[in-house]
Amino acid sequence: MTGPIYTPLVESLPSTVPFVGPETQERERGREFTARIGANESVFGPSPKAIEAMTRAAAEIWKYGDPENHDLRHALAAHHGVKPENITVGEGIDGMFGYLNRMLVEPGVTVATSLGAYPTFNFHVAGYGGRLVTAPYVDDREDPESLIALAKAEGARLIYFANPDNPMGGFWEAAAMKRMIESVPDGALLCLDEAYIDFAPEGAALEIDPDDTRVIRFRTFSKAHGMAGARVAYAIAAAPLVTAFDKVRNHFGVNRVAQAGALAALADREWLAEVKRRVAEARARISKIAEANGLTTLPSATNFVAIDCGGDGAFAKAVLDGLIARDIFVRMPFVAPQNRCIRVSAGRPADLDAFEAALPGALADARAG
Amino acid sequence: MTGPIYTPLVESLPSTVPFVGPETQERERGREFTARIGANESVFGPSPKAIEAMTRAAAEIWKYGDPENHDLRHALAAHHGVKPENITVGEGIDGMFGYLNRMLVEPGVTVATSLGAYPTFNFHVAGYGGRLVTAPYVDDREDPESLIALAKAEGARLIYFANPDNPMGGFWEAAAMKRMIESVPDGALLCLDEAYIDFAPEGAALEIDPDDTRVIRFRTFSKAHGMAGARVAYAIAAAPLVTAFDKVRNHFGVNRVAQAGALAALADREWLAEVKRRVAEARARISKIAEANGLTTLPSATNFVAIDCGGDGAFAKAVLDGLIARDIFVRMPFVAPQNRCIRVSAGRPADLDAFEAALPGALADARAG
Repeated sequence: MTGPIYTPLVESLPSTVPFVGPETQERERGREFTARIGANESVFGPSPKAIEAMTRAAAEIWKYGDPENHDLRHALAAHHGVKPENITVGEGIDGMFGYLNRMLVEPGVTVATSLGAYPTFNFHVAGYGGRLVTAPYVDDREDPESLIALAKAEGARLIYFANPDNPMGGFWEAAAMKRMIESVPDGALLCLDEAYIDFAPEGAALEIDPDDTRVIRFRTFSKAHGMAGARVAYAIAAAPLVTAFDKVRNHFGVNRVAQAGALAALADREWLAEVKRRVAEARARISKIAEANGLTTLPSATNFVAIDCGGDGAFAKAVLDGLIARDIFVRMPFVAPQNRCIRVSAGRPADLDAFEAALPGALADARAG
Repeated sequence: MTGPIYTPLVESLPSTVPFVGPETQERERGREFTARIGANESVFGPSPKAIEAMTRAAAEIWKYGDPENHDLRHALAAHHGVKPENITVGEGIDGMFGYLNRMLVEPGVTVATSLGAYPTFNFHVAGYGGRLVTAPYVDDREDPESLIALAKAEGARLIYFANPDNPMGGFWEAAAMKRMIESVPDGALLCLDEAYIDFAPEGAALEIDPDDTRVIRFRTFSKAHGMAGARVAYAIAAAPLVTAFDKVRNHFGVNRVAQAGALAALADREWLAEVKRRVAEARARISKIAEANGLTTLPSATNFVAIDCGGDGAFAKAVLDGLIARDIFVRMPFVAPQNRCIRVSAGRPADLDAFEAALPGALADARAG
């Protein structure tokens, strides 16, 4: 019995997890976190109407979900002023990044991203054998110009860019993004991750030309809509690319109850406005807490704030460890010099009370080294 | 603007849907089905305790699900008397078939299945460029001996077998399955689809040796547990194969509420027994209805019954069309001679009343041609 024979590519991959979940840490620590403000989840929860819709749909969970995601796709098309043929729905942006990489990437194909950008995208590039090239952040933001220059120089077929950015929280105005799309090299596709776009200032709202074959835009119900656990996201793209997803996607993969919840969440603009208001409040409070501890924060167009701990990556890691030891779940960037920061998600007042109480001790411990 | 450049493999794939959903048919018809008994869903629904657990969890949908599926994996391990290291949880069997094919299949790799067996498995084989070889059904069952002989002759690396079988409903005793596993050729893996095992007679319950590297067994919450729309399934396999899934799976892909629901469903053995009782009743009633119309049925170890319409595939298709025109959603096998049958899922009394009322007219129309 030799066991199964894997493809050489899969054989070469590590058994890895892009992110360790807070539940894993809680099991290892033997106790729960007081504040769960590390994964940029929306602690304010989904729209009450979405909860109501999901509760109502729960009894019908015996039915497979609609593999066309018809109602949600049509509602999204109306919302964005595009055709349903420009929308494909999937099991979260992570799952959809898998499909996109599968369609474009194989050994020999180059993909460009920023050094320190979203690691799950890189997980999928590696998973399909792609060669990843990276451009550094400039002034703590992903840099369109150097990324496009890199993509041109290296012949990248796929380019990842997040606007607003995770993990640093910055954003580019629509005009800059428009310039970036126009400079995408022929034969390349820009994968524009707009997971946090709902939190950005008005100026970030890039108009959508759904027939532009140079870009695919990803949106999600995991962030502002407060449904991370539901696994519903979508892409807006030219119709031929949307159709191509049907070649590889898990057609019945979106949970039926989640479809109903997303539909209700999309319709509840009041709740979205309320969440944005609370997130703005929380961002301001996180900055105040940081300042009170002698730290600075980076501007944020997202539902989190990067706090510059004022030292190097090892120092920030020590602060992070001190917070975790004090039952505060936060995360931090992976790469220097961005890893001088920790990343704190917008929390409820009680979450930020706990953070405020824990930070001085975590800093003191880190300084005591 | 040339648009994105796909891999040659993806370029060659059709944009296809393995199954057209009943919602699509309802939209095309402009009206709803009276009885939804075509997708082998469990119309009896999930355990009330599972609904309760999902309702309770709905407000926490803002949290990502545990990427380790820890609690469910541990409960499943205890249930099956194996280690958690032998269990991997995923987004339905369909999604997990995708991962399995991705790990083992690439252009040049051969996969063996039965002609007319589960088409979504074949969708994934094609999706990864595998060469599919098929052995015919024997006496309306997948045939272990000829399938293994084919796999040996063709050097297949992956072998698909469903026990009990879909779409015909038959099953093999544990002794036959044990013999099949022992004859799996070196370097090949048997993908044993046990989606319907809960409905099978006791004799079908194959003892699990989780360290046997020749077989991976798939189970689901979509059938007897009545949670098709939730997208939760799992595989039982040797630990190295389970670990290999971590290389390619969508780690945060299982809906958080679905995890909670599956955990509650697994614990409710009374509900499972009740569902099995109702399914057995429904099977008996479907057979009676068929007999009353001069038709025969095949023995079933599943939650559906294949009714032999007594003619060829075109005749059965005409009967099926007549049923659909009469608002009864059913499906049928794809391949001769199995396509002389229609496949009717176990329904509630009202569903089967509607089927009983519709069948004579559908048959008469089909005979009138």
